Amino acid sequence: MTDDLAARVLRGERLALARGLTAAENGTAEGKRLLQSVYAHTGKAHVVGITGPAGSGKSTVTDTLTKFYRGEGRTVGIVAVDPSSPFSRGAVLGDRIRMQDHWSDSGVFIRSMASRGALGGLSATTFEAALLMDAFGQDIVIVETVGAGQDEVEIAGLADSTVVINTPATGDDIQAMKAGILEVADVLLVNKADLPGADTLTAQLKALLSMGEARPWKVPVIQAEGRTGRGIEELAAALAHHRDHLAQSGEMRALRLRQARHQVENILKEELLRKAIASSGGQAGMEALVERVAERGIDPRSAAGELSGSLQRVPVTG
Amino acid sequence: MTDDLAARVLRGERLALARGLTAAENGTAEGKRLLQSVYAHTGKAHVVGITGPAGSGKSTVTDTLTKFYRGEGRTVGIVAVDPSSPFSRGAVLGDRIRMQDHWSDSGVFIRSMASRGALGGLSATTFEAALLMDAFGQDIVIVETVGAGQDEVEIAGLADSTVVINTPATGDDIQAMKAGILEVADVLLVNKADLPGADTLTAQLKALLSMGEARPWKVPVIQAEGRTGRGIEELAAALAHHRDHLAQSGEMRALRLRQARHQVENILKEELLRKAIASSGGQAGMEALVERVAERGIDPRSAAGELSGSLQRVPVTG
Repeated sequence: MTDDLAARVLRGERLALARGLTAAENGTAEGKRLLQSVYAHTGKAHVVGITGPAGSGKSTVTDTLTKFYRGEGRTVGIVAVDPSSPFSRGAVLGDRIRMQDHWSDSGVFIRSMASRGALGGLSATTFEAALLMDAFGQDIVIVETVGAGQDEVEIAGLADSTVVINTPATGDDIQAMKAGILEVADVLLVNKADLPGADTLTAQLKALLSMGEARPWKVPVIQAEGRTGRGIEELAAALAHHRDHLAQSGEMRALRLRQARHQVENILKEELLRKAIASSGGQAGMEALVERVAERGIDPRSAAGELSGSLQRVPVTG
Repeated sequence: MTDDLAARVLRGERLALARGLTAAENGTAEGKRLLQSVYAHTGKAHVVGITGPAGSGKSTVTDTLTKFYRGEGRTVGIVAVDPSSPFSRGAVLGDRIRMQDHWSDSGVFIRSMASRGALGGLSATTFEAALLMDAFGQDIVIVETVGAGQDEVEIAGLADSTVVINTPATGDDIQAMKAGILEVADVLLVNKADLPGADTLTAQLKALLSMGEARPWKVPVIQAEGRTGRGIEELAAALAHHRDHLAQSGEMRALRLRQARHQVENILKEELLRKAIASSGGQAGMEALVERVAERGIDPRSAAGELSGSLQRVPVTG
């Protein structure tokens, strides 16, 4: 029973959360019902997005920040978006090592999300995982994403507060910034700040920020060393400060609306696509149409028109 | 008149192509009609995706490869996906410099795509731009994307042949590989091969490839120096070889089906979403529903159900 599963997740049973996360990620009927059942109990956790280029030390920062929160007695959920590939055995291994690190701590729950084959899009699935951890009762949910592609920007944009990590170690920090990620950053972290170039990078980032439009929230640039813990307390303070700002400025409401719209639109598109295919010859009809498009017998928009024509407005009864 | 515009694009008029690309990127009615009109004339160009991490020298490789093709008398279209941001003035400037380089050559057409706000998704818009350049008559269309996020993987997956660039210069080449990009690579290019570590990187990539599943196409690993032109002829040969392989193995058909399905599904989702919103209170009704979701009065899936319920199967007449 899903309702049972929902109740168990809400009661804070780890095995129920683990099962629920898998069901949600796989888009099963059980996962969908679970998300519906617990939704009213979400919106309490502080969802923190942590992103940055490969090698910038995201995992280390996440782990150190988690230990800091645990020291304050707060519970933490970690959703690590793990680009999966037959070649990513290293990542899976690294993840197991991380799990062991927090294994004995019942106040931490870690889940890696595979980025491939996510039904309804990676950002939707990731956000749903964060919602489940929120319902489970974690005070802080950290969503850790690799890279700075469009998906990562989207994921970061759905978090309450977003940390973008840079480091003087990789040569192309400023270039990596181009992917629009700077616009979604609420806190900029210069990690590996013991390396040469950290001060220059910090100054560059501040200069870049001053070029952007003035916004009510002034994005802080914080130097840190994930391994030693330097700067992590300052990071936690900046995040708490940002959350207060969201609540007081009314931006929290705008954020909640954006999160809601994203979810509704995503689910709606998938549902409507499924309906349109079902009502026009099923998957076989779709395949025949795709074949005609591939052979240039019909253009994609006209083909889509044939499919969408099979669904129409419900006539007003009476 | 769009038909006029289509005819002018098909005749190879540069100004018509420029206008058509803008219309397509903005998703205007004119752009949609243009894509419909020229679609039957596409599928002739060799669409080559070039991707890799920031700083790997994608633009230089693209430019050098373009010069090589021009030397062979072949025409080239370049679609550069340019992550736009208020902070990316450098990119825009760099693009202007590149334009000047090929300005006097009527056999080259360059268009930068903004990655933000692309209606119907970045990969759809980028692919449509490639289709227009194909219809315009360019022999080769190079789609150049920054980074290795999920969108980039998707874009690369839609090209006929995909080149993934690595370099010994950035410390995290192998890590960047994790994003599933290795799976869509048809050619691996080790750029900046004059730098120390190039041979090690080449060996590592070959080892990684040997770990993957055996596939009919054996992915070559080519060392290159974009600036000097070393390896570029070999790259062009590998791409020609790959295209022959696609045709002979039957993989071309599978690719054309994948491209067709992607386009039909994308257009269909956007159309259906528009219809569902229109038939259930319009944008205002949608906003009211989103508000209820944000306030936890209803869960996202039930909200989507209310909207999708407003569209139903066309009743069978007779």
